[in-house]
Amino acid sequence: MTEEQRKKLHEIIYEADTPAGKLFDIILLSLILISIIAIMLESIASVQLKYGFILAEIEWIITAFFTLEYIARIIAVREPRHYIFSFYGIIDLLATIPKYIGLLFPGFGFLLAIRAIRLLRVFRILKLIKFVGAGNNLAIALKKSRAKIFVFLFTVMVLSIILGTLMYMIEGPENGFTSIPKSVYWTIVTLTTVGFGDITPHTPLGQLLSVVIMVLGYGIIAVPTGIVTSELANQNKDVHLNTQSCPNCGASNHKDNAEFCYNCGTRLH
Amino acid sequence: MTEEQRKKLHEIIYEADTPAGKLFDIILLSLILISIIAIMLESIASVQLKYGFILAEIEWIITAFFTLEYIARIIAVREPRHYIFSFYGIIDLLATIPKYIGLLFPGFGFLLAIRAIRLLRVFRILKLIKFVGAGNNLAIALKKSRAKIFVFLFTVMVLSIILGTLMYMIEGPENGFTSIPKSVYWTIVTLTTVGFGDITPHTPLGQLLSVVIMVLGYGIIAVPTGIVTSELANQNKDVHLNTQSCPNCGASNHKDNAEFCYNCGTRLH
Amino acid sequence: MTEEQRKKLHEIIYEADTPAGKLFDIILLSLILISIIAIMLESIASVQLKYGFILAEIEWIITAFFTLEYIARIIAVREPRHYIFSFYGIIDLLATIPKYIGLLFPGFGFLLAIRAIRLLRVFRILKLIKFVGAGNNLAIALKKSRAKIFVFLFTVMVLSIILGTLMYMIEGPENGFTSIPKSVYWTIVTLTTVGFGDITPHTPLGQLLSVVIMVLGYGIIAVPTGIVTSELANQNKDVHLNTQSCPNCGASNHKDNAEFCYNCGTRLH
Amino acid sequence: MTEEQRKKLHEIIYEADTPAGKLFDIILLSLILISIIAIMLESIASVQLKYGFILAEIEWIITAFFTLEYIARIIAVREPRHYIFSFYGIIDLLATIPKYIGLLFPGFGFLLAIRAIRLLRVFRILKLIKFVGAGNNLAIALKKSRAKIFVFLFTVMVLSIILGTLMYMIEGPENGFTSIPKSVYWTIVTLTTVGFGDITPHTPLGQLLSVVIMVLGYGIIAVPTGIVTSELANQNKDVHLNTQSCPNCGASNHKDNAEFCYNCGTRLH
Repeated sequence: MTEEQRKKLHEIIYEADTPAGKLFDIILLSLILISIIAIMLESIASVQLKYGFILAEIEWIITAFFTLEYIARIIAVREPRHYIFSFYGIIDLLATIPKYIGLLFPGFGFLLAIRAIRLLRVFRILKLIKFVGAGNNLAIALKKSRAKIFVFLFTVMVLSIILGTLMYMIEGPENGFTSIPKSVYWTIVTLTTVGFGDITPHTPLGQLLSVVIMVLGYGIIAVPTGIVTSELANQNKDVHLNTQSCPNCGASNHKDNAEFCYNCGTRLH
Repeated sequence: MTEEQRKKLHEIIYEADTPAGKLFDIILLSLILISIIAIMLESIASVQLKYGFILAEIEWIITAFFTLEYIARIIAVREPRHYIFSFYGIIDLLATIPKYIGLLFPGFGFLLAIRAIRLLRVFRILKLIKFVGAGNNLAIALKKSRAKIFVFLFTVMVLSIILGTLMYMIEGPENGFTSIPKSVYWTIVTLTTVGFGDITPHTPLGQLLSVVIMVLGYGIIAVPTGIVTSELANQNKDVHLNTQSCPNCGASNHKDNAEFCYNCGTRLH
Repeated sequence: MTEEQRKKLHEIIYEADTPAGKLFDIILLSLILISIIAIMLESIASVQLKYGFILAEIEWIITAFFTLEYIARIIAVREPRHYIFSFYGIIDLLATIPKYIGLLFPGFGFLLAIRAIRLLRVFRILKLIKFVGAGNNLAIALKKSRAKIFVFLFTVMVLSIILGTLMYMIEGPENGFTSIPKSVYWTIVTLTTVGFGDITPHTPLGQLLSVVIMVLGYGIIAVPTGIVTSELANQNKDVHLNTQSCPNCGASNHKDNAEFCYNCGTRLH
Repeated sequence: MTEEQRKKLHEIIYEADTPAGKLFDIILLSLILISIIAIMLESIASVQLKYGFILAEIEWIITAFFTLEYIARIIAVREPRHYIFSFYGIIDLLATIPKYIGLLFPGFGFLLAIRAIRLLRVFRILKLIKFVGAGNNLAIALKKSRAKIFVFLFTVMVLSIILGTLMYMIEGPENGFTSIPKSVYWTIVTLTTVGFGDITPHTPLGQLLSVVIMVLGYGIIAVPTGIVTSELANQNKDVHLNTQSCPNCGASNHKDNAEFCYNCGTRLH
C-alpha cells in the first residue's frame, strides 16, 4: 500500500470533512445502531423464536464489517500502537471480539452491548464545536470536583453500612432484612430515593429510622449537585471576563470584548 | 367583512386589553378547562355509564365553539397563513380536529387532550410582564444549555444500554429481566431514582450492580441541575451590569462601576 | 384588669425575654408536642384500646389550657382584632376549636393536627437572629422566584395531562390505567421520580413512553433547583458587599466591614 | 517505656510519613475492611452455617489486634485523656467493645458495624491536601448553612405531620393508612420522592392530595440543594479575593483589585 493510498484511507476512516469520510461515518453509526437493536431484539424470547436466524445473520455481517474496519484503521495510521491502545481503539476491539468468543462460549455474545459505547463517536461526526465544548466543560467540571465527589461517596458508603446494620438489627430476617449486605442494599435504595419497595420496614422503630434515612438522602443529594453546580458556575464566570489588565491604571476584570479600560479610558491593546 | 369589522374582531380575539377581549379570553379558557375535565370524566367507566350522554353533548358544544373560533381567527388576520402555521395555530387545529376524526375512527377522541396545551394561553391573558419574563428566562436558560443537555442525555442513554445488558446477563429471565429492552427500561427506572419495584434484582451480584447504578443516578442528577442552575445564575449576574448606554457609540451592558465606555473610551457620565 | 396587669400579661404571653415569659413559652411548646403525640397515639388501634381514656383526658386538659391561653392572648393586647386576624391568631383558634366540634361531629377531632403549625412558634422562642434570618432568606428567595415557579408548575401540569392521556391510550384499563385521571396521577408519580409501583406499564410502547417521562422528570427537577439556587446565590452576593460609595473617588462594592476605600484610601464614614 | 520508645510508637501509630507508619496504617485499614466483610458475611444464614466458625475466629483475632492497638494508642501519647475523648478515640473504643459485650449479651455483636466509621481514617493516610481540603470545604459549607437547613427540616416535619393526618382522614385504615404515625411515614416516603409503594392511596381524593405532596416534594428538594450550592459557590468566590494581608494592620481577604487596606487605609503594595 503506497503512502498516498494510506492517506486517502485515513481521510475516509478517521476524518469527517470529505463527502467520502462523512458517508463512511454515517454508515458506521447506522451499522452500530442496527447491531445494537439486533442484539436487543434477539434477547426477546418471542422475537428470537421467529426471527432469530435473520438477526444472527445480520449480526455476523455487521461483525465482519467491524472486523474489516478495525484492520483498516490499523493500516491507515503510521503508528498503529497509538490507535490500538487509545480509548476508541480498545472499544473498537471489545465491540468485535465477543462475537467470535461467543462461538466457543455461548452466553458471552451479549457483551456486544459494549458496541453502544461506539455510539459516542456521534459527537465526532456532528463536529459541532458547541457539543464538543459542552462535553469538555462537563468533563472539566466533573474532573475538578473529583476529590469532593470521592469524599462524598466514601462517606455515603460508610453511612450506608452503619445504617444498614442498624436496620438489620431492628427489622431482622422476619421482615425481609435477611442479612446485613441486603440491609445495606436496602439502605442505598432508600438513601438514593429510588425506593423499589421490594423490602420495606414493618416495625415502628424501623419506620422511624427509615424516615431519618430518607430525609438524610433527600438532603445529601444537595451535596453532589452543589459541587457540580458551583464548578460549572465558576467556569461560566471565568469565560465572561478576560484576563488583561489596563496598561495605564492596572484595572482588571475587563469584559471579554472590551476595547478601552472601564476605569481610566485607556485603549487596552 | 369590512376592514373595520376585521379590526374589531382582531381586537376581541387576539388582544386582551379591551373588556370584550378580556371576556372572550376568559370564556375561552373556561371552555378549554371544562372540555379537559369532560374528557377526563368520560374516561372513568362508572361516570361514563351515568353521565356519558351529557358529557358527550358538552364536548360537542365546546368543539363547535372551537371550530367557530378557529374560523374567526383565520378571518380576523390579514395574512391567515401566519396564524395557521404558527405554534398556536397548529395547536388550535389539533385541539379541534380529533373530535371529528373520532366520528369515523372511535378511540382517537382522547387525542383531544392536546387541548391542554391551549391552557398555556393563560400566560398571555395574565399579561404580567413578570410571568412572561420568567418564562423567557427559563426558556433562554434551557436553550443555552441545550448542547450540554444533549451530550448528557446521549451519554446516559449509552450508559443505560450497557448497564441494562449487564443486568440482563447477571439476573436473567428467571428474575424478571426477561429481555435486554426490559433490562434497559429497568436501568432507566433505577438510574432516574424512580424505582417502581415491578422488577427488582434478586442475585447478590445483581444487587451490587444495582447499588452502583443507583449511586450513579443519584450523582449524575447533579449534572442537569448544575447546567440549568449555572445558566440561570449567569442571567442573574447579567442583571448587575448597569443599564446606561454610551452617549457616543451606544454600547450597553457596561460594568456597574464603569467610568468609560469599554467600546470607544468615551466618559460615561 | 388594670393597664399594668395587662402589660404584665403581655410580657409573659407574647415575649420571651423575661424568665416568666420564657417559662410560659417552653410550657406552651411542650403542651403542643404532648398534644400532637397524644393525637398520633390515639389513632393507633391497639394503643387506643388500652390507653384511649387517658389520652382523651390529656387532650381535654391541654385543650382547656389552649382555650384559656387564647382568651388571655385576646385580653393581653389593646387591639384584639390585630391578634385574632393575624396568622398566628387564626392558627391558635384552629388548634382549639376542632376538639369542641369533635364533641358534636366525631371524626373532626383529627383536625387537631393543625396544632403542629403552632410548633413554628419555636423559632420565636429560640430568638436566634440566625434562624430568623435563615428563614427570611429562604422566604425571600422563594417569593422572588414565585413567577418562575408558577410558570414551571403550570407547564408541568399541562405536560402531565397530555402524557397521562397518551399513557391511557397506550396501556388502557387492562394494564391498570383505568381512567385518564388515574393515568395523570401515574404520570405525576413517575415524573416526580416517586415511583410507587402500584401501577406500572406493561406494553413495550408504554414502557418506552415511561422512559421518556422518567428522563424528562429527571431532567426538569433541575429547573426548580436552578431557580431557587440562583436566587439564594444572588442573595449571598448582595449580602457581602455594602452599598456605600467612596466620598472621594466614588468606587463602590466595598466589603461589608470596610473602613477605607479600597481604591484611593479615603476614610469611608 | 522510655520517652524515646514512646516517640517511636507515636510515629508508627499516629503518623503516616515513615515507611513503618504507612505500613501500620495500611494493615489497620485492611483489618477494618476484613472485619466489616466478616460481620456482613456472618449475617447471611447460608454462609454462617458453612463458614461461621472461621468467620468468628477471624473476628476474634482482629478484635484482639484492635484491643492492643487501642492500648498502644493510649500509651503512645503523653496526655491519654486527649485521645480517649477525641472523636477517633471514642470510635476506636466503640469499634472494639461490642465484641466483648456480645459474649454476655448475644445480638449486640452487630454493633461492630461501627467499625465502618474507622474507615474514615483512610483520608488521613491518603494525606492528600486535596481530599482534606475537599472534605473541609464540604464541612464548612454544611456548617454555614446549618441554620437554613434546620429551619427547612423543621418546616418539612410540621408539613409532614399535617399532610399525614389529612391523608389518614381521607384514606383511612381500610386503604393501608392504619394510623397517623404510619400516614406521616407514608407522607415522608412520598415527599422525599422515595415512593416504596408498600402503602398507596386508593381514593380519588387521596390520589389528588398525593399529587400535591409529590409536586411539593419535587419542588422543595430545590431548597437544600439551593442552600448548599450557593454556599459552595460562595466559597469559590472567596477564592477570588487575593491573598495579601495589610502590612500595617494585618487585615486579609482584600478584594482582588484593592489598592489600599479596607481596614486602616494603608497602601497595600
